[in-house]
This record gives sequence, C-alpha cells and structure tokens, in this order.
Amino acid sequence: MNKSNADQPIGVFDSGIGGLTVVRSLRQLLPSEDICYLGDEARYPYGTKSAETIRRYAHEDTEFLLDRGVKMVIVACHSASSAALPFLKKDFNLPVIGVIEPGARTAVATTRNKRIGVIGTAATISAGEYERAILSADSSVRVIAKSTPLFVPLVEEGWLEGSVTDQVIATYLTSLKEDKIDTLLLGCTHYPLLKPALAGFFGTGVKLVDSGDETARVALEILSKMDLLRSENRKGMSRFYLTDLSPNFRTVGERFLGSPIQDVTRVSVKYEA
Amino acid sequence: MNKSNADQPIGVFDSGIGGLTVVRSLRQLLPSEDICYLGDEARYPYGTKSAETIRRYAHEDTEFLLDRGVKMVIVACHSASSAALPFLKKDFNLPVIGVIEPGARTAVATTRNKRIGVIGTAATISAGEYERAILSADSSVRVIAKSTPLFVPLVEEGWLEGSVTDQVIATYLTSLKEDKIDTLLLGCTHYPLLKPALAGFFGTGVKLVDSGDETARVALEILSKMDLLRSENRKGMSRFYLTDLSPNFRTVGERFLGSPIQDVTRVSVKYEA
Repeated sequence: MNKSNADQPIGVFDSGIGGLTVVRSLRQLLPSEDICYLGDEARYPYGTKSAETIRRYAHEDTEFLLDRGVKMVIVACHSASSAALPFLKKDFNLPVIGVIEPGARTAVATTRNKRIGVIGTAATISAGEYERAILSADSSVRVIAKSTPLFVPLVEEGWLEGSVTDQVIATYLTSLKEDKIDTLLLGCTHYPLLKPALAGFFGTGVKLVDSGDETARVALEILSKMDLLRSENRKGMSRFYLTDLSPNFRTVGERFLGSPIQDVTRVSVKYEA
Repeated sequence: MNKSNADQPIGVFDSGIGGLTVVRSLRQLLPSEDICYLGDEARYPYGTKSAETIRRYAHEDTEFLLDRGVKMVIVACHSASSAALPFLKKDFNLPVIGVIEPGARTAVATTRNKRIGVIGTAATISAGEYERAILSADSSVRVIAKSTPLFVPLVEEGWLEGSVTDQVIATYLTSLKEDKIDTLLLGCTHYPLLKPALAGFFGTGVKLVDSGDETARVALEILSKMDLLRSENRKGMSRFYLTDLSPNFRTVGERFLGSPIQDVTRVSVKYEA
C-alpha cells in the first residue's frame, strides 16, 4: 500500500444507515473532509448476530472501503466495534477507529459521582467492551450496563417520543435511575435520536454522552497527528454505498444524517467467505 | 432430478427462527414427516430489505434445501413468500408453498361480515400479496392491511403481554377495531405468540387466523395428492440448519417451536451472487 495522503476520503462503515449519525458528527467537526460511507443494509442488523459472523462482515466491509482508497476507517457500528476492532487493527495497515473507546473516555471525563450507565444492543452489552474501556480508564468507576433492544426499532419506526417510547424507556432504565448514575453513554448509533425522550426521563442531573461526537473528535486528533487533515479551503463531499436499498432507507437515513442523502450507489460486498 | 419419494424430508426455510412456528404446525399435523429447516439468521431479517435482495436470498435458501434432498419446499418467511414465491415456482422443479395463499383462503372462509384485517412487516404489507390473494378468492371482501413493525422485536424481547405490548397493539390496531373487522390474519411467523394479547385487545368477536397452521394443512393436501405422504408408523425427525447461531437463538427459537431444538448445524449458504 502506498502512503496515505490528505486528499483521500475518510471511510466509515456500519451495519446499516444508523452510522449516518457518525457521518453527521464528522461533517460538523471536519467539514472539508471527503467521506466514503458503506452501509451493509443487506445483512443488517449485526447486533443480533454472533461475534464470529460480525467479525467476518466487518472484515469484508473494511476491504470494500480500502478498495475505495480511504485514508482511515471508522467502524460506526457499535456491535462491530465491540466484536471486531482488535482484529481489524491487526489485519489492516491504516488507522482504524471504533466508537467504543472515544465514548468511554468522554464518559469517564464527564462523571462526577463515578456512576456511569451504558446502553446498547444485546451484542454490544454482552460483549462488555464499553465496561472494559471505562474501567481501564478509571477502575474506580461503577458501570451499570443495560441492553435496550427495543430502542432501535422504535427509532426506525419514528416513535421518538410519546407514551410507548416513555414506557419502554422506563421499563429498561428505571434501575439505572435508582442506581443514581450521573452519566449515560449512548452505545448505539440510533440512540442520539432518543436524546430528548431520555433527557425527559432522567432530568438535568444525568449527562448524555454521544459516541458519534466523541469518535469524530478522535478522528480529528489522529488525522492531525499523522498530518492527514485535508486543507480547509474546500467543502468535503460524501459518497454513500449501500448493500441494499430498503424501501425506507431514505426517510430513515435522512433522519440520521440530518440532511438529504445524495450520491447513493447500491453495491455488493464481494468478499463473502 | 430423480422423482421424489415419500421418505424425503419436507424443506422449510425462513429468514431466521420465526419459521419454527410453521415447523410446530407441521409437526402437529404431519408427525411422521421428516423436516429439514434452514434459518438464514446471518442475513435476518428479510422484512426490511428490498424485493430484489429478498428474491436472491430466497433462491439461495431453496437451492440449499434441494441439496439436502427435500421433496417439497415451504417458504415460512412471509416477506419471502410475498416477494419471491412466483420466481421460486418457476425456477425449481418441485412443489413450493408459501404462507400467503393458505392464510388468505382460510381468512376468506372465516369472515362473516367480509371485513378482514391483515397485519405483517413493512415489506409484507407494502408488497400487497395478502390483499391480492384475499381479493382473488372473494372480490367482495374489504381488506384492511396494516404494517406492525414493532411486533417482531416485542416477541423477540419476550414481551408477549403487559402494558407496553398492549399500548403498541392499541397504537397500531385501533383503526382496524373501528373498521369492525371480524377476522385478523397474522401475516408474520412471529405473531402467533401475540395471540393472547391480540385476543385481549379485540375480544371474542374477532377470529385470529394463523398462517402457519393453514400452510401445514395445504402441505398435507399436496403431499397426499402427489402420493408423497410418509408412512404413519414412525415418528418424524427434524434437522435444523442455521446460517448463524446468535446468542439467543435457542431461547427464542424454543419459544417458537414449543419444544427443545436438537440437531442444529451452523451452515453457510454458498450461493452468494
């Protein structure tokens, strides 16, 4: 592989279109960067699959982005960050960033009472990577982790508030409230859209940490250190590759991205084992 | 292909393990038949994917079952029945049964006031195959179709009753109640587990039609006509092939099957395009 240069795009992959919340964070912080996004909609979601299968998919997704000449790979999918990141770092010769570590670090820096709640899909929570990342940053923190599988379908259905959403939140998170957490780490790309409902449930005493924002910050840090930041006098472009165009990808995707999705190509990830 | 014989197994495929509710119906009605089940967990769910992608997957699943020497293929997945059945019937030289037609026929035979409600995933409902099948059986029926995307995650979470479930049901189905349907067709493998909650919401005036039971009846009919029914003096065996073993496939799967899952093999569907 030739040495990377600053004009190459940042690669981002996710199991679907939820990772567009990370693209949104990247665009805000790094507006001049080009972004190449792969959403593996055809095999969505990863969160319910085994670690072995998630690793295989993540490997194929990374190869796809490499073929598009990216200078860095961001694993926007929490399940893939959790199950596959060390393997990707070992197997590929470019910076690979996950969403776990950045969120965990910020949560530790945010908490005052050292009680951090972490929520995510069943796969993310049972993998325990957030817990490990938080404890390795500060072993005196108490981590209360809880899987909240219904949050993703609620967001995809567009039920971002209302009595069903409030009841699902209360069912999952009352124990975290009782445990008096002061920081809640949103361990899934979909969850930022539930911020208003979550803030309503917890009140102002609990800070919500969005892993997407924190991941964008780490990307800036690394690119800056490697002298790979793109010159700031131009606006970056985004290209979107999806392995399937589901009937509602545009409606849901634009909700995540916060703006219209242009330049979409349907692709096949051809590295199937 | 050689002529089929009665000792060959019945093949059943689904996007995941929801199709085990159809296996349960088959076992009750045809206890001496062997069953070969393929659950495409690695690419689950189909319901959110495009018709084109669902057709490709269904084709690969059918080939897999053919390689295991089945005498008939049952498409237990409603999204695949809806998007792919005519293509499978054309491309393969053995009886292929979907879950749409049998359920639709029974719903028409059940209704008194000619108002039938149909519920399913977004893909099943937007494909409109249930509606077409009902109207071609009786064009004077009024069909009220409604997609209910949160039912699948509710069932997988095991929230089969309780206030969240009741509210989700009310949110989706109050309009069907107001439309005075007397028959509700459960157009998704997962939904039979919500029967008690649905019956509670609708009361005794609405009959629930379970497509799985009706599909088993049609399988019996066709095998009998083709002289392919297995002799009744032995107990049938079931083999389960899954393209992924997700952390909770056993817990959730046994809820669907109604008995322990034995003889499970993890396989790869190797016909990826």
